[in-house]
Amino acid sequence: MPEHPTATRLRLAGLCFLLQILTIILFAAFVRYSPESSPSLCSPQLNCSWRNQDSGFQHLRFRDVHLQALLGFGLLLAFLSRYELGSTAVSILVVAFAIQWAVLIQGFLYFFLNGKIFVGAQSMVSADFCTAAILISAGAVVGRVNPVQMLLLTLLGVALFTLNEYILLSLMGVSDSGGSLTVHTFGAYFGLMVSRILHQPHMDGRKGQQDTGHRPDVFAAVGTICLWIFWPSFASATTAHDNAEPWAVLNTYFSLVASTVATFVLSPVLHEESTLRMVQIQDATVAGVAMMGMAGEMLVTPFGALIAGFLAGLIPPLGFRFLTPVLRSRLKIPDTCGVHNVHGLPGLLGALLGVQQAPQNPIPALACRLGLVFPLVAQGSRTVANQALCQLCALPITLLLATLGGCLTGEL
Amino acid sequence: MPEHPTATRLRLAGLCFLLQILTIILFAAFVRYSPESSPSLCSPQLNCSWRNQDSGFQHLRFRDVHLQALLGFGLLLAFLSRYELGSTAVSILVVAFAIQWAVLIQGFLYFFLNGKIFVGAQSMVSADFCTAAILISAGAVVGRVNPVQMLLLTLLGVALFTLNEYILLSLMGVSDSGGSLTVHTFGAYFGLMVSRILHQPHMDGRKGQQDTGHRPDVFAAVGTICLWIFWPSFASATTAHDNAEPWAVLNTYFSLVASTVATFVLSPVLHEESTLRMVQIQDATVAGVAMMGMAGEMLVTPFGALIAGFLAGLIPPLGFRFLTPVLRSRLKIPDTCGVHNVHGLPGLLGALLGVQQAPQNPIPALACRLGLVFPLVAQGSRTVANQALCQLCALPITLLLATLGGCLTGEL
Amino acid sequence: MPEHPTATRLRLAGLCFLLQILTIILFAAFVRYSPESSPSLCSPQLNCSWRNQDSGFQHLRFRDVHLQALLGFGLLLAFLSRYELGSTAVSILVVAFAIQWAVLIQGFLYFFLNGKIFVGAQSMVSADFCTAAILISAGAVVGRVNPVQMLLLTLLGVALFTLNEYILLSLMGVSDSGGSLTVHTFGAYFGLMVSRILHQPHMDGRKGQQDTGHRPDVFAAVGTICLWIFWPSFASATTAHDNAEPWAVLNTYFSLVASTVATFVLSPVLHEESTLRMVQIQDATVAGVAMMGMAGEMLVTPFGALIAGFLAGLIPPLGFRFLTPVLRSRLKIPDTCGVHNVHGLPGLLGALLGVQQAPQNPIPALACRLGLVFPLVAQGSRTVANQALCQLCALPITLLLATLGGCLTGEL
Repeated sequence: MPEHPTATRLRLAGLCFLLQILTIILFAAFVRYSPESSPSLCSPQLNCSWRNQDSGFQHLRFRDVHLQALLGFGLLLAFLSRYELGSTAVSILVVAFAIQWAVLIQGFLYFFLNGKIFVGAQSMVSADFCTAAILISAGAVVGRVNPVQMLLLTLLGVALFTLNEYILLSLMGVSDSGGSLTVHTFGAYFGLMVSRILHQPHMDGRKGQQDTGHRPDVFAAVGTICLWIFWPSFASATTAHDNAEPWAVLNTYFSLVASTVATFVLSPVLHEESTLRMVQIQDATVAGVAMMGMAGEMLVTPFGALIAGFLAGLIPPLGFRFLTPVLRSRLKIPDTCGVHNVHGLPGLLGALLGVQQAPQNPIPALACRLGLVFPLVAQGSRTVANQALCQLCALPITLLLATLGGCLTGEL
Repeated sequence: MPEHPTATRLRLAGLCFLLQILTIILFAAFVRYSPESSPSLCSPQLNCSWRNQDSGFQHLRFRDVHLQALLGFGLLLAFLSRYELGSTAVSILVVAFAIQWAVLIQGFLYFFLNGKIFVGAQSMVSADFCTAAILISAGAVVGRVNPVQMLLLTLLGVALFTLNEYILLSLMGVSDSGGSLTVHTFGAYFGLMVSRILHQPHMDGRKGQQDTGHRPDVFAAVGTICLWIFWPSFASATTAHDNAEPWAVLNTYFSLVASTVATFVLSPVLHEESTLRMVQIQDATVAGVAMMGMAGEMLVTPFGALIAGFLAGLIPPLGFRFLTPVLRSRLKIPDTCGVHNVHGLPGLLGALLGVQQAPQNPIPALACRLGLVFPLVAQGSRTVANQALCQLCALPITLLLATLGGCLTGEL
Repeated sequence: MPEHPTATRLRLAGLCFLLQILTIILFAAFVRYSPESSPSLCSPQLNCSWRNQDSGFQHLRFRDVHLQALLGFGLLLAFLSRYELGSTAVSILVVAFAIQWAVLIQGFLYFFLNGKIFVGAQSMVSADFCTAAILISAGAVVGRVNPVQMLLLTLLGVALFTLNEYILLSLMGVSDSGGSLTVHTFGAYFGLMVSRILHQPHMDGRKGQQDTGHRPDVFAAVGTICLWIFWPSFASATTAHDNAEPWAVLNTYFSLVASTVATFVLSPVLHEESTLRMVQIQDATVAGVAMMGMAGEMLVTPFGALIAGFLAGLIPPLGFRFLTPVLRSRLKIPDTCGVHNVHGLPGLLGALLGVQQAPQNPIPALACRLGLVFPLVAQGSRTVANQALCQLCALPITLLLATLGGCLTGEL
């Protein structure tokens, strides 16, 4: 963020104050702690009601709530190497509001009973997922919008993310535990459409050099290491069943390893520079993880994860070299942090991989595993082919919602 | 620390050596591992004895010991952005001795049986709490005392902290799981009194510019993100019962979010600078967490946590603007890292909030929850009003001990 | 790494590509997910087979897989303060390949059944251990070898590490849960021998000033804090039995504290510089931890851990002052990161401590503990003295394999 005149800054402070007061009033009116935390008070009908509404979340085991909270901040840390530090403050403001609004909006859809929202560990995890998607969107426009516009993007983004997630997970029964589709793809394309609408040629010229990455690589190094350490366990925290967890962890880990190697393979071919920059390794890591978001718990062979990760790792270098310039000059979509290469395309590929894996699962020896990943199929209320179709339909729905929502938000 | 002549440095080395040898001898004489870790050896009367002695710690569930260890180092990391790196080495020396002495001194009070101290996971967690308080105290005087004085402060601080904690938790049955009172308030006022006694006007003039924060904001950014990720789970690790945990986590999380927004609201009003510095966001985060230390497991509504956090977030900017200059010029209490604004006042407010919450808890639906947070009330041996009175009395006791102890330490 | 000409870089890219393709083919041919993750599929004879083969790992409790994954990266972070950032990229490449190859090679030894390797959480943890040893080896030669040589070192290092570990843990039944011998000692001496063979006098002169540590201390500060936080829990994650865990954690913690104090004692005596550099504290921390790798779960008194840690903390300052120059000038073994002082000697001492502790354990009150740490002794198939002998024999075997392997690798 460049210098704001004092008036703008006071306007931002006033807006934050009003929004926070409004949020507190809404919390006071609607939000209560879920009595499930003290089991003796837990009314059975409450439990049943949200269980039926939300089949996607019903089996979540919240062993260590704090690990899930890392998603949003892992991303934030990952972005630090590309943002200026001034933008970091705005990012934290976005996070602070996105969490509160996500608790409210998701609460109305998932945890609403007798006129009250009952929040618990689940709400926090869902809100963290939502915050991650908003941070990805913000990555596409950061440096070209003012904080007030950023807050508007946050508000509409949270609402649209929740709507999309509700349609996919609850209504269609799509399995997307790591958020390939709901977090990475939605976040990237929503941000890109906002960026398209807000595009002003003269602004672009002045800020166009931002993504050449003059930031010191220290941040990228720390961010990469954090992603390696924490993301595999994050991926496992949200899988459908306890028994399925190890596969999601291992698939994510293998994907990440292979995508890192892919960067080392491709980068010397594409770039003239003598050494590999840490930020490229970080991009490959994120891409490898986004790829495994949906398919992580479905893939049944380690070499599949290696191949998928290797392909995912090829995307960011190719994208930054060939796609980002085209996006900027032809389609007038500047992309400050390259979210299309790092989150959008790998998430898309990950979703396609999930679609392709869905009908292949029922090899006899793994029949019981199918039930873990696709509970509706195991219950017999849906065939495997239908499930694959649902997974496929989820893709255009997400893209449609993201682009339409992005246009709308950009216009506002 | 500026340059020490060689003599001073050798004196410090000799002192460290002697203290370490003395500590090892004391450990050899008194400290043994608690046989509770190998259950077959666990003598029932040992278990009973410390359970009865230490009602405050009895229900601690040590699921992940290492997470608690983060408190001290989370703080350390938080301080890095204000200290010079030279001071960091001294801080680590303080941590190394504080842990050993806390194990010894707390061991004599809590885990003493048949002439031996039996240490276990509990001792380590208690020692980490104590180390955190000492680090806060050190934050008030760092840069103006030499390492030998710092070690003396550590020794007396550990003894006084343990005494205060013993009076509050064991004798009075006060509930203070997150340490609003025992850690933040005690640490801040103890450090401030030491700072008052050691104050020398000419030193102050030379070092007065330290808290204007010339350190790069990189550290503050990393520190803030670590606090967001790890502190809520830390807060949960020490709550009275397993069932009560989620509330403490969520309350801390909401408080932290609201206090961050508060900084964005207040900072442009108070300061002329164009952008918000990361260190201000970090201060707000710490204040929001200190606020929830005692009340985190008592608050029964999310909006209460939001309001409390918002108020806590207002304290550091106001304090740095209006209070710190007054403290320095009128009361002759320089405060290198601003611990009064960041730890002292929010901890005080948090303790008052805990007092105010204590008698409000027994709304019928939450009767069982009361027993979790205040075991003595649930056992019928104390009324709710008495508990609130105890919580209130704990406040002046802590302040008295901290200020008297600080004076004594400063004189020595 | 200094500038490579374009040809070298393309050659590296091609090599990475070929190796990755080869690895994927090997994975496709041999590696499958262990069905143990979905218990209904778990064939009893598979479980039995690797249990019998691998007595050292059989009781591993994988509560939180991700914590173990920290070892490799904790080390990586620790190295960052000594490496140049350009080397960091190469380190990550080494990690990415080491994990894949370790899964393959260890799989053939431990998890092989019916022509397939069945990987699971265990494989990942073993692979992380192996990666840590390779990173230590790389620390001895970094800055003086090109990436292609580094990949060769990785491949041979992984094979030799696995062979050594298999002989020690499975064939000899040595207890080395924290890897004093298998990770630290093997890694350091393997790296040193490679460094000896690759030594070229004129290269050494140009690069000799690298270990004087011009890197900013910021990285060392962050690395030290991460080690303090995460290593004790890492050490606990791999101990033989759940009940034995707290002792390993506490021993590691006490050792770390005492070794830090030791640095403060010794450093002013040896060095003229006025202030202690963070990197020295970090070295002491690593040494204190390496010391406790084997003996951490055996030591029965806290003061033993304090004494051992204090001695370990004396090694790195003495080593850097007196040993490293001798190694370089007389034995022609340059040691870029000082791995001999930080990992080699403390690991060696830790192994000796483990030998010395082994026969002392059976004091009557701790009989049941013995069974936890040395299952073979508890089963009656081996006397205590035999176990101590085995532990002792493990030392020359490791040294022999490391030096021979290092020579071989260096020649290639």
